[in-house]
Amino acid sequence: MRKSEISSLVIHRMPRYYRCLERLRNKGIDRISSRGLGIQSGLTPSVIRQDLSSFGEFGQQGIGYCVEDLLREIVEILGMNNGYTAVIVGAGKLGNGLMSSFPFETYGINVISFYDTDPEIVGTTVFGAPVHHISELAAHLTEHPVDIGILTEDLGSVDDLTKMFSEGGVKGIWNFTNTELKIKGEEPVVENVHLFDSFFSLCCSINGYGRRC
Amino acid sequence: MRKSEISSLVIHRMPRYYRCLERLRNKGIDRISSRGLGIQSGLTPSVIRQDLSSFGEFGQQGIGYCVEDLLREIVEILGMNNGYTAVIVGAGKLGNGLMSSFPFETYGINVISFYDTDPEIVGTTVFGAPVHHISELAAHLTEHPVDIGILTEDLGSVDDLTKMFSEGGVKGIWNFTNTELKIKGEEPVVENVHLFDSFFSLCCSINGYGRRC
Repeated sequence: MRKSEISSLVIHRMPRYYRCLERLRNKGIDRISSRGLGIQSGLTPSVIRQDLSSFGEFGQQGIGYCVEDLLREIVEILGMNNGYTAVIVGAGKLGNGLMSSFPFETYGINVISFYDTDPEIVGTTVFGAPVHHISELAAHLTEHPVDIGILTEDLGSVDDLTKMFSEGGVKGIWNFTNTELKIKGEEPVVENVHLFDSFFSLCCSINGYGRRC
Repeated sequence: MRKSEISSLVIHRMPRYYRCLERLRNKGIDRISSRGLGIQSGLTPSVIRQDLSSFGEFGQQGIGYCVEDLLREIVEILGMNNGYTAVIVGAGKLGNGLMSSFPFETYGINVISFYDTDPEIVGTTVFGAPVHHISELAAHLTEHPVDIGILTEDLGSVDDLTKMFSEGGVKGIWNFTNTELKIKGEEPVVENVHLFDSFFSLCCSINGYGRRC
């Protein structure tokens, strides 16, 4: 199967496989069946076999998957060793929390800088990364291209920020704002973390709506 | 359609409708067609009509939806005015960031307290909410039942925390940890925000995998 033909559902399950396999490796387990990986990941063995076969021939019937080999392949697929660079828009509580709690460094992601408008924050550093004024973003992207733009706050207009990222050659946007981004063309790709939607769909379920699994 | 028969995909789109309708109301718009709501939300008019019809008869052909009425109905569906209570496990950067940046108060969600293990944090308050030691959680849930447990950190064992929430009568868990929660039975319902999975599926797309929309 060609890289571009793999469905986004499969793409979204790959990091989950990585997490499970990393836990298994840390426990010293070197081989696992699709049934065993199913118990770890909460997915069915057939979904796992189908997902992994999209990327090539990993498992052997009756023997299962070699944890180390599969991990190495998934690291390649996820681009974990590609040395991606990122900038974060918004050096407030969410941007700060993300920088300190998300394992960017562990996986070779270099967060170069923050952008904000607050005069008390601009000019400082957050966990070693300088905070610039948002008005400098476009020029900086031209001078030093980055791979990933992380939007933690609507500073001004989300449409303008998206345009700046797009024109500045950013390849992917991790969007924490409550706004749907309008992208013209194929890039940047967008991954949304709509916390509002996540929390209130939980409330909706508590309120009695929706099927239980 | 019965409440419990509505699919989780529909449930997950309801907060998005709320966000769009709130923006429209703030602009003074009092009526909108499914086509207009489609442009705002990035969904197709037929998906919108189908989703909303699961909850009853809202729109009128040729006239569209009354923004105010639909908002009021969605507030009911999402349980926004139900006065839900919540506790947050982990008073570190992510828990802090969430408390300060997420609009709990605006939507009537009362975050009663935090739980942590760090002796430097336990005994303090975070944005007015006291930080207790995690060992007190089970007893507190028995004394003062809460609706929602928010897991921002693996403090000890996620399985133990899940069990405590479950036995303490918590109705829903908002899970930010990297672990899949094991729930026995129908409650609590779980909504996962796997930031790791979200970020690395973005990297995977940047790496050339997956269909572009």
